Amino acid sequence: MAMTISGSTQRPAPQALASAVEALAARFGNRLITSQAVREQHAHTTTWLPTQPPDAVVMAQETADIQDVVRICAKYRVPVIAFGTGTSLEGQVNAPAGGVCIDLRDMNRILEVHAEDLDCVIQPGVTRKALNEHLRDQGLFFPIDPGADASLGGMTSTRASGTNAVRYGTMRDNVLALKVVRGDGEIITTGTRAKKSAAGYDLTHLFVGAEGTLGIISELTIKLRGIPETIAAAACSFETVRGACQATILAIQTGIPLARIELLNSEQVRACNAYSKLTLPETPLLLLEFHGSEIEVAEQSRNFGEIAKECGGGDFTWTTKPEDRTKLWQARHDAYWSVKALRPGAGVVATDVCVPISRLADCVTETEDDLKQLNLLSPIVGHVGDGNFHCSLVCDVDNAEEMARGEEFMHRLVERAQSMGGTCTGEHGIGQGKQKYLKAELGPEAIDAMRALKQALDPQNIFNPGKIVPAA
Amino acid sequence: MAMTISGSTQRPAPQALASAVEALAARFGNRLITSQAVREQHAHTTTWLPTQPPDAVVMAQETADIQDVVRICAKYRVPVIAFGTGTSLEGQVNAPAGGVCIDLRDMNRILEVHAEDLDCVIQPGVTRKALNEHLRDQGLFFPIDPGADASLGGMTSTRASGTNAVRYGTMRDNVLALKVVRGDGEIITTGTRAKKSAAGYDLTHLFVGAEGTLGIISELTIKLRGIPETIAAAACSFETVRGACQATILAIQTGIPLARIELLNSEQVRACNAYSKLTLPETPLLLLEFHGSEIEVAEQSRNFGEIAKECGGGDFTWTTKPEDRTKLWQARHDAYWSVKALRPGAGVVATDVCVPISRLADCVTETEDDLKQLNLLSPIVGHVGDGNFHCSLVCDVDNAEEMARGEEFMHRLVERAQSMGGTCTGEHGIGQGKQKYLKAELGPEAIDAMRALKQALDPQNIFNPGKIVPAA
Repeated sequence: MAMTISGSTQRPAPQALASAVEALAARFGNRLITSQAVREQHAHTTTWLPTQPPDAVVMAQETADIQDVVRICAKYRVPVIAFGTGTSLEGQVNAPAGGVCIDLRDMNRILEVHAEDLDCVIQPGVTRKALNEHLRDQGLFFPIDPGADASLGGMTSTRASGTNAVRYGTMRDNVLALKVVRGDGEIITTGTRAKKSAAGYDLTHLFVGAEGTLGIISELTIKLRGIPETIAAAACSFETVRGACQATILAIQTGIPLARIELLNSEQVRACNAYSKLTLPETPLLLLEFHGSEIEVAEQSRNFGEIAKECGGGDFTWTTKPEDRTKLWQARHDAYWSVKALRPGAGVVATDVCVPISRLADCVTETEDDLKQLNLLSPIVGHVGDGNFHCSLVCDVDNAEEMARGEEFMHRLVERAQSMGGTCTGEHGIGQGKQKYLKAELGPEAIDAMRALKQALDPQNIFNPGKIVPAA
Repeated sequence: MAMTISGSTQRPAPQALASAVEALAARFGNRLITSQAVREQHAHTTTWLPTQPPDAVVMAQETADIQDVVRICAKYRVPVIAFGTGTSLEGQVNAPAGGVCIDLRDMNRILEVHAEDLDCVIQPGVTRKALNEHLRDQGLFFPIDPGADASLGGMTSTRASGTNAVRYGTMRDNVLALKVVRGDGEIITTGTRAKKSAAGYDLTHLFVGAEGTLGIISELTIKLRGIPETIAAAACSFETVRGACQATILAIQTGIPLARIELLNSEQVRACNAYSKLTLPETPLLLLEFHGSEIEVAEQSRNFGEIAKECGGGDFTWTTKPEDRTKLWQARHDAYWSVKALRPGAGVVATDVCVPISRLADCVTETEDDLKQLNLLSPIVGHVGDGNFHCSLVCDVDNAEEMARGEEFMHRLVERAQSMGGTCTGEHGIGQGKQKYLKAELGPEAIDAMRALKQALDPQNIFNPGKIVPAA
């Protein structure tokens, strides 16, 4: 049983595909891989979407490799799918029309670090953790943290964000410029290293979040930050989701520069208590982080503590000691594993929506009620400062009836978020799984515009076909 | 003598134009204006570009008006140019192919304010000051301040920014969603009120900075901020531009959340002393603003003071008293007028470039040297936290030889910025004046992409033709 996919696509003619693979083999030798195991690994979707492997995988080592793969594929009209670490959540790396996957993991060089400008130039296969490891000695870091140790090329392509977004923004806010290989193999430069520019159409932001459907990112210039002098962690339990959300709203309105503010609902806290042997009150929990000077984080923590109290919060604990910070955030760090452990052998399907923060409490509460009604289990974790939350639906993937209820739940979740002025996805992207929701969210005119953009920049439809834009 | 314009455009056939004007007259009555004076006002460019008036002006009152103007103009293939307050600086409202100007000043309603979500929904003719006036009682403000009291539609279309950008970003970072009238009069919705989204191509950011060349913005959803509890102003003179830039770099690296940091070069300080009867040391001056709680701004000011000292700064003064803040910033507030007064009767041409901050001192210093070499007068004011600076070239517009030197200066300024990894414009936009620099900055592939996007979304080329994208 797999979830419904809406977009349709056509496979290339067998002869064209064979010719493309032959040309790639001649160019790349054993860096062209066609074994079933490797092809299937490259369609690993970490979702309940069916696996749709590409016909071949090329291990790229430099920009010229990407250019040549694209040129060969364009010649034979064969799809090209970029692959970073395969941690996307809506089928972005699936190959519904087959084609050639370009694995970018070996394009992992950090080309330049400009400490004074707080930016760096990197290849797309650099992962978040590798980058931060490299930067640490210079007192710098890259703030976007989607959880997985994803590649920066992939994070850019899915417009990823995560727990830090409330303070540092998403990938949208942290990419300065890109180099993108277009359909004829030539390279589009989208911007400069200047911190701001009013020079022409914003090509950078057109490629951020395009999920590889408009070209292949071969180089990125991204913003960095100074590692904060002091980090404080804090935790506070609330009687209700509404209280936790109200505290968040007040904190943001009064300008407390929250670095992270994560909501765990009662179900999630229960799962964490069981898994991590904690003794947290099994009510909604807020976990926070403050970044700044010692004086600043102390003031921020105190101010938040007062707001939390006004909003029905329980004991407010905060600390700047690294080992105590880790302990305080234990529940959040173990959230994923605690859900996996709830029902060993079952699948866990992650989905996300995002609503205006004033509607977050309504949306989470109604979602909790809906889960009860559908007799489904799904702890909720929210990047509450952004109005963004995740459901981790625990499902027996071999039970068609349960999966049907799961799919129904997902539909209703999206409809609920959209009816509240929100979006069908805050950070996972559209991929294959959420194409069917775009039209309801933005209207047919926006879909027309997206289709026109796709047609304009990828007239042959070779770049990751069957993603984002629903079939006409 | 006027500056060279690169893009070329064709006027509509006279019969088509006459038919369009007739249809508009029937629909809009005396809200269609064709008097020469009004037409010329609507091509007022605040630049040395030649005035190119539209053939007619329609005073729009609601979205349906925009839709009908666009439908009529599309039928006859007549250009449509959106007009806010006419404060753009690169000829964005000029009508090189004639056509119909839609004046949006009467579409100035604030439709919704969502205090909890820190956003609002407005019509495009709302000006920055009117919006902030409206928001003040709710403790909210919109932070982008380009100097002029521009309309928010125009600020969006030119991707405006200003003195606050170092902390609050530019229009790019502060627009959540747009409604845009497309070529057939239907409306594209680009996003929702959710604070972040990964749902499809980033249509919002494609229209931000498109200078009305892809459609007409009819409604905006923009982000707001809480008015800071305390504002501190500060000032510090430096012996050299390099010292001032170094202090800025260190402050940003250490994470001091500067709200504004403005550089006035010696020439500008001299002009301010003369105009405002000040007694500032006639060396580079930094003016700063800090936003936060009392404790925070005090700490930020102190920390910056220490950095300034390390970098050769003179006396560092800071204050939170409103009247003293105004006095401290007097030179900045009077900068424009002080330049106008330098040579009564002469023109002042404003231009801007933006470079990576590590190159800012080089760029400003070399620009000062070039001015001397060319025997030209141009005080410099910089949004130094962004690496962005403005030259205010004082020129006798009737002196062809002097204007030729001025144009030469502008060319060299852009080339200098681009050679340092920067951009030909940080905030004024491309319009007509800077089309010739786009290709050198981003390469022919980016121009191809921009041309393809224009063709995709405006196949009839009716929206503000002759702007941004150079003629093929």
